[in-house]
Amino acid sequence: MTLSTGGDLRALRERKPLVHQITNYVVMNETANATLALGALPVMAHAKEEVEEMASVAGALVLNIGTLSQPWIEAMLLAGKAANYAGAPVVLDPVGAGATRLRTDTAKRILSEVKIAVVRGNAAEVATLAGREAEIRGVESIGASDSGGELARAAAAELGCVAAVTGPVDHVSDGERVLAVTNGHELLGTVSGTGCMATAITGCFLAVASDRPLEAAAEALVAFGVAGEDAARDAKGPGTFHVGLYDALYNLASDTIDSRAKVDE
Amino acid sequence: MTLSTGGDLRALRERKPLVHQITNYVVMNETANATLALGALPVMAHAKEEVEEMASVAGALVLNIGTLSQPWIEAMLLAGKAANYAGAPVVLDPVGAGATRLRTDTAKRILSEVKIAVVRGNAAEVATLAGREAEIRGVESIGASDSGGELARAAAAELGCVAAVTGPVDHVSDGERVLAVTNGHELLGTVSGTGCMATAITGCFLAVASDRPLEAAAEALVAFGVAGEDAARDAKGPGTFHVGLYDALYNLASDTIDSRAKVDE
Amino acid sequence: MTLSTGGDLRALRERKPLVHQITNYVVMNETANATLALGALPVMAHAKEEVEEMASVAGALVLNIGTLSQPWIEAMLLAGKAANYAGAPVVLDPVGAGATRLRTDTAKRILSEVKIAVVRGNAAEVATLAGREAEIRGVESIGASDSGGELARAAAAELGCVAAVTGPVDHVSDGERVLAVTNGHELLGTVSGTGCMATAITGCFLAVASDRPLEAAAEALVAFGVAGEDAARDAKGPGTFHVGLYDALYNLASDTIDSRAKVDE
Repeated sequence: MTLSTGGDLRALRERKPLVHQITNYVVMNETANATLALGALPVMAHAKEEVEEMASVAGALVLNIGTLSQPWIEAMLLAGKAANYAGAPVVLDPVGAGATRLRTDTAKRILSEVKIAVVRGNAAEVATLAGREAEIRGVESIGASDSGGELARAAAAELGCVAAVTGPVDHVSDGERVLAVTNGHELLGTVSGTGCMATAITGCFLAVASDRPLEAAAEALVAFGVAGEDAARDAKGPGTFHVGLYDALYNLASDTIDSRAKVDE
Repeated sequence: MTLSTGGDLRALRERKPLVHQITNYVVMNETANATLALGALPVMAHAKEEVEEMASVAGALVLNIGTLSQPWIEAMLLAGKAANYAGAPVVLDPVGAGATRLRTDTAKRILSEVKIAVVRGNAAEVATLAGREAEIRGVESIGASDSGGELARAAAAELGCVAAVTGPVDHVSDGERVLAVTNGHELLGTVSGTGCMATAITGCFLAVASDRPLEAAAEALVAFGVAGEDAARDAKGPGTFHVGLYDALYNLASDTIDSRAKVDE
Repeated sequence: MTLSTGGDLRALRERKPLVHQITNYVVMNETANATLALGALPVMAHAKEEVEEMASVAGALVLNIGTLSQPWIEAMLLAGKAANYAGAPVVLDPVGAGATRLRTDTAKRILSEVKIAVVRGNAAEVATLAGREAEIRGVESIGASDSGGELARAAAAELGCVAAVTGPVDHVSDGERVLAVTNGHELLGTVSGTGCMATAITGCFLAVASDRPLEAAAEALVAFGVAGEDAARDAKGPGTFHVGLYDALYNLASDTIDSRAKVDE
């Protein structure tokens, strides 16, 4: 499979799709800024009175369960259905699935009531949803019984959507093919919300490649990983790395990024 | 008209007015830090049980509808009326007015039930409230039928308050006079929440110049614009620019800022 | 008393305790990132359906009342009781106690219904809870009638827990001994949420030293203060200082930090 991260990034920057995000309180500013730095337009809206209207005009919808409560769950379901009806792709980030019953049940409910294009999570979160063994501490994956590639394939087959399992190596699968993305940097693990940013960026790529969700999900991880590599160059720790990440996303060169992609099938 | 941005900035840093903000989840940290860096004291409080008490002792109140829900709307109305009663000026940021009915209706309701000193928004948001043609994508203005200056004048006349329409050039009007502020930098458009920061800073200046809302609104945009120019100097993208903005607000020199103001009447 | 900040920091980085935080919207990202940079694992969860489950598996619980509303108050009480039952230490940050009745009453209610290990606040907040004279503007302490050391001692005795009163000099007391920590930097006062970060870091140290709450509270302020000193070195204002703070927390050297501690008993 040949990815065209550069071509889709160029399209994204030209079209500036609206990416509607119903996400957690911790990372809202971060995912909005990552979306904007990459070149798309973020919008946050969570009131049940407006989420359908907003989701209907968006190029993609991002649902992230990182700080759930009942009204937000209802809003996610309403928005998800509206996006489905309008034909906009939906990404789900099941933050902390496996850590509490509320999170596990909510992620499963969203998967059953909304057509999800891509699930992006860590190994423990995705394993929980796919009915596999996993260990999670808060929202941090401690381990899963399957290897990343096998887990992504099994989860995609089980959930009927593309599964993107991120970690030291990222694995993306549609249930048949499995792509391994090794771009990235270990400093990504030292900043809260980088997983959520990866999900938001997946939404950005899906907005311009909704007919190619496997590619879109892998390209998003390539783009975010390359940005992480760039940000790490002058970083002195998590603070300067975090700041550098927005600069790097903004400065990603669409004409050279494909040569920097580290993807194996 | 002669602005005295430096004099009002000096007063603000001496008096450290409390600026009560009921704002959106995405930018709370950002507007709090911008307020603090400039020299005023931010406080965030949104519970209906406490907003009147807090607004009553504040030097200014900032209402921002960026991530609305019903309890927050009620809190904004309660706080707005309490600020009116206490004589504290109120700024409204109608984030996304025109994008959904909830936002449009809420902004109009606040304008009808609360005496607003300044509305600060982008062209599409302000045009929506003034009953003019406009196009908005999420919270981003795509265009408005009127020029910025004409729009600011018409909106101020229609809404009965000062209108501050920000964009590549900012226009501020009280319905008669129109000030054009050209301070600023294009990197401001690459960071989420810079509009909201401009609104918070408008609140800071209003707190020390509540009898001169037109001047206060223009001075806030001069100060924020000059800070943007300073922050852009060493920025490598949106991340370093964003960080530099707080440094620049903190380091704004009250004795030279008036010489850097680019304001036309 | 001999503190072992380095030893406890080393333990914290090895065990990576989960620190459950129910905190305010303004600083969630900041306290999560401070926790992670130091070496512990943050998790934010506030739904009443999940807080008991999350608090039960956490190494410490942080309650912060900075942006209260009714559902969050209920969640804090549920989580606090669950943490008590599970034996996990609880830290309370009474943000704005004294500024509104809701905040004062809520802080007192939490103190009466939940066993608190450490209260960490500014002088006005702690004085309010201890029934002493104080003046607060929003969430900023304007003054308290007692000196910091006397206030910490009186508050600890009155409240039956360790009291950590932060300011230019920090004072920590268990009602008998009083420790004065002079590490830190004045730029900490220019960034919103540094008090909340100090509270989160207190939670991190408590998670590995729950049987020594006085030491844990003082060590947290030493660690945060030393990080502040390091961050100030190349800072050009609040923005670069804030970013540098995460780098500094991440880079704190456990084998030299004790030699940098400035603590008097």
